Amino acid sequence: MTDNWHHGAAAVVTLTFDVDAETPILAQGRHYARHASTMSHQAYGPEVGLPRILAMLDDLGVPATFFVPGWVAERRPGLAASIVERGHEVAHHSYSHRPPTSMTPEEERADFERALAVFAGQGIEISGHRAALWEASWQTADLVAEHGLRYDSSLMGDDRPYRVATRSGDIVELPVHWSLDDWEQYAYLPEPHIGSVIESPAKVLELWRSELDGMRRYRCLFNLCAHPFLSGRPGRAEALRRFVEYALECGDVRFARCRDVAGDAAADAALPTRSPQPPDADPEVYPV
Amino acid sequence: MTDNWHHGAAAVVTLTFDVDAETPILAQGRHYARHASTMSHQAYGPEVGLPRILAMLDDLGVPATFFVPGWVAERRPGLAASIVERGHEVAHHSYSHRPPTSMTPEEERADFERALAVFAGQGIEISGHRAALWEASWQTADLVAEHGLRYDSSLMGDDRPYRVATRSGDIVELPVHWSLDDWEQYAYLPEPHIGSVIESPAKVLELWRSELDGMRRYRCLFNLCAHPFLSGRPGRAEALRRFVEYALECGDVRFARCRDVAGDAAADAALPTRSPQPPDADPEVYPV
Amino acid sequence: MTDNWHHGAAAVVTLTFDVDAETPILAQGRHYARHASTMSHQAYGPEVGLPRILAMLDDLGVPATFFVPGWVAERRPGLAASIVERGHEVAHHSYSHRPPTSMTPEEERADFERALAVFAGQGIEISGHRAALWEASWQTADLVAEHGLRYDSSLMGDDRPYRVATRSGDIVELPVHWSLDDWEQYAYLPEPHIGSVIESPAKVLELWRSELDGMRRYRCLFNLCAHPFLSGRPGRAEALRRFVEYALECGDVRFARCRDVAGDAAADAALPTRSPQPPDADPEVYPV
Amino acid sequence: MTDNWHHGAAAVVTLTFDVDAETPILAQGRHYARHASTMSHQAYGPEVGLPRILAMLDDLGVPATFFVPGWVAERRPGLAASIVERGHEVAHHSYSHRPPTSMTPEEERADFERALAVFAGQGIEISGHRAALWEASWQTADLVAEHGLRYDSSLMGDDRPYRVATRSGDIVELPVHWSLDDWEQYAYLPEPHIGSVIESPAKVLELWRSELDGMRRYRCLFNLCAHPFLSGRPGRAEALRRFVEYALECGDVRFARCRDVAGDAAADAALPTRSPQPPDADPEVYPV
Repeated sequence: MTDNWHHGAAAVVTLTFDVDAETPILAQGRHYARHASTMSHQAYGPEVGLPRILAMLDDLGVPATFFVPGWVAERRPGLAASIVERGHEVAHHSYSHRPPTSMTPEEERADFERALAVFAGQGIEISGHRAALWEASWQTADLVAEHGLRYDSSLMGDDRPYRVATRSGDIVELPVHWSLDDWEQYAYLPEPHIGSVIESPAKVLELWRSELDGMRRYRCLFNLCAHPFLSGRPGRAEALRRFVEYALECGDVRFARCRDVAGDAAADAALPTRSPQPPDADPEVYPV
Repeated sequence: MTDNWHHGAAAVVTLTFDVDAETPILAQGRHYARHASTMSHQAYGPEVGLPRILAMLDDLGVPATFFVPGWVAERRPGLAASIVERGHEVAHHSYSHRPPTSMTPEEERADFERALAVFAGQGIEISGHRAALWEASWQTADLVAEHGLRYDSSLMGDDRPYRVATRSGDIVELPVHWSLDDWEQYAYLPEPHIGSVIESPAKVLELWRSELDGMRRYRCLFNLCAHPFLSGRPGRAEALRRFVEYALECGDVRFARCRDVAGDAAADAALPTRSPQPPDADPEVYPV
Repeated sequence: MTDNWHHGAAAVVTLTFDVDAETPILAQGRHYARHASTMSHQAYGPEVGLPRILAMLDDLGVPATFFVPGWVAERRPGLAASIVERGHEVAHHSYSHRPPTSMTPEEERADFERALAVFAGQGIEISGHRAALWEASWQTADLVAEHGLRYDSSLMGDDRPYRVATRSGDIVELPVHWSLDDWEQYAYLPEPHIGSVIESPAKVLELWRSELDGMRRYRCLFNLCAHPFLSGRPGRAEALRRFVEYALECGDVRFARCRDVAGDAAADAALPTRSPQPPDADPEVYPV
Repeated sequence: MTDNWHHGAAAVVTLTFDVDAETPILAQGRHYARHASTMSHQAYGPEVGLPRILAMLDDLGVPATFFVPGWVAERRPGLAASIVERGHEVAHHSYSHRPPTSMTPEEERADFERALAVFAGQGIEISGHRAALWEASWQTADLVAEHGLRYDSSLMGDDRPYRVATRSGDIVELPVHWSLDDWEQYAYLPEPHIGSVIESPAKVLELWRSELDGMRRYRCLFNLCAHPFLSGRPGRAEALRRFVEYALECGDVRFARCRDVAGDAAADAALPTRSPQPPDADPEVYPV
């Protein structure tokens, strides 16, 4: 039995962009709305980085998936549509970008549903979800399944898609990983304090290429996560372009939207199922 | 319609130097004045780094802009004049280097005007402003326009100049970005704790060159920010020299003072206008 | 007199893997068990990284040592046996991964013995120990000797094996060092906050090769520490593979399990003995 | 008038080693004495790193200066003598390695004099001083002069030697800088938390070579600071060796002990004098 979600490719690349705009900063403190420079740093994402990336994807002829917080889609009404018009996918990235682990179950549910309502109001079809800050709770997968979405992309339990059993049936997990996130390489702000040294695009390109090469050996899902306010900058956009060109030159790499990979994975009888559970952390063993 | 602020160049470089001296440290705590080593580390900027950079700019034949806190200009009376005499620009970088976001509106105004008074007293003509720590408030652009300055250089909403509408008329924004700031690459102090690993000039040169190359594709403003106490060090000065030589060799890069770019941009009918507003951060969505 | 533990090699490599799974995170706070993404990030180690590494070691034909917390061995009953079956060594890495320096002597003893009981119950023979977080107390070596283990691998007093005198007789120390730990290069989590930038495998390979080359000059023990949840990722596994291939090509490097190096070292009359003692830290000299 | 302290070289290199052993850790908290691994990490410096470095300097035929805290010299009685016997210099590095900025003037004086008493008791002639953590107070230079030492090496006001006027006459300052300190590149400990990623020796070698090249252009003092517990590791010792070989190959670089450079500088009439003063940090300008 062979895995079908690959379509014969050595590795599958899902280019994903988290269009966070101001939300991750406001989630750290409402008062940062008073910081004009910081807000402009975040607004660069949807206003400058996003159109640049969309144009580049057109040039390169590869599809992508854009995870958009409901708050962002609401405040910039044409944004989600402009992505879908180009043939890309818009997916659910919470309403507020507050991580589920920082909310009560009721708050998480309300935030989750509020984003869905925004997208429904804009006629944007949603197939998948990614938790803010990749900090899913144990309830998150249940919410995804209960609301009829096909996939989640917030866990890190594998480097290939896997099935997750929930109370409302199975979903597909398209796992992420910090090493394929541009945030740890590029993000820097003094207030709130984020990042340390800022890496050069050449280093990031090398990191991504070496991970892709490893993934081609092991037949994995290269689920890249970039942010328009970071990778939309000129030198970094060039590095991203070169990465895509490299992957295309490999000849054995397939590009797809998350929705399509999730569909193929759901139809793949060989796909492994995981039913992760919270570990029992006994207070006698772990007193803190 | 073509953009005129470029004068036909693929990218425009504004070399800017923030001559902060002791101010960013004192802004973190007055008691650091008692730290002799730390104060000497900062004094190196105006006393050793600045003359070295001025001589290098003469060698290379390129103009630059020096953002000087009023407190520094006041304590080192000949400093601003020595910059202007070489044909470079001196610009407003607050009085105390305390960030506007840490002050009340009244404090910000008083600090802003105190610096202007220092420069007026020294006969230094000021055309533009950069907020301390690139932490402008929403009032900052208003202050700039109200006091008759032509441009601000504290926001990050684009990588090309843009018009900002204020209560007192339009100004030009010459946007900055953390990836073109030498602070995140080189700064290190144990007390106050600043920085982590110290990067090599070779890495920084690579980072700047790759950003310039990206900017030449996208016709941007390469608004470099260096600090004499950092990039005035011998090996780093060499990297800066090599960067300028590289840009000159490109043949399609223009060097200009901020004041001149702002003038060209203000006269450019094609320049986009932005009127950034503080986002509404609803306490129900962002309770913290 | 020549040293015998080397068997004539210029350097000896012990590949060690700390199979920590969820324990280092739970040791920082029991409540992290509620973080589904973070727990999946850790579960990747035993579930994906470990089998990949075991297969790679088979390919390469080199032996290794796996330090496993008792808590992990208990919850994944077949794990330790699957390692031993391939000819590798399983060693003691505490029960809970709480560092000895954070426990009372009684707690450290209980944690130490609980792990031994787990391994005894699974029929796994244990010869050596490594303290959680490499944070041994002054009691740790005593516990190792008292329970009949042959070696410890938690101290950093040399880069060659040495004898440590304890109340219950001598043991061998196989020293570790942070520069040969993949954690500082690769680990990143937002909550608990771990790491900063994530390094590329190319940099890590360079670091390891340069240390091996230095150690071949000085005839040292290259005691590499990798984590399946980190170095089990595709691009990093490739770097590890290339490191082993490089070491094999050197022609003068020996690979061995810790148990075997400890046995050779214990039999080596030329092995130096150290009896480290806590320094007297006089409160008049060190008031804090 | 030409500067004589150079002896015609393009740059002068002072290789300096801060033999801190356990002191910088104990200065952060007396209770770290209970951490056996951490103490072994520090003991590696005098016990393994130092003899390796001394042998390497013999090989290379270059002199060096070792800054030793009195506490270290006291607890390892033969250490200072073993350095002097090889023709190198031992200099004053405080007694406890507590930074002067964290002590009262009386405490700083007592600590300063206690170290001198240790060296006097061991017959070690002391000519110069370096403040712990490079955190000199404004009193430090006075103490150096008052006790008849010729130079200090704790300030960063230049990259060439300069004269400092004190209440007890002039001394020579041999300035240091964080970019020529191996600590920021290599140091890592979890408790106390020090460092972030650990850099590779190849990067550090590149950093040092580029700074030396810059200094050869500007005729500076390359005052390298390495720590035996860091740069005594095999791969790092190799990088240090390669740096020295590179400098020797330049043909225009002079190696000297700090004492000798200070003597030459003191005799150089062209040496600039600085009389640094604490800046007036007005509480109205700097309220924090």
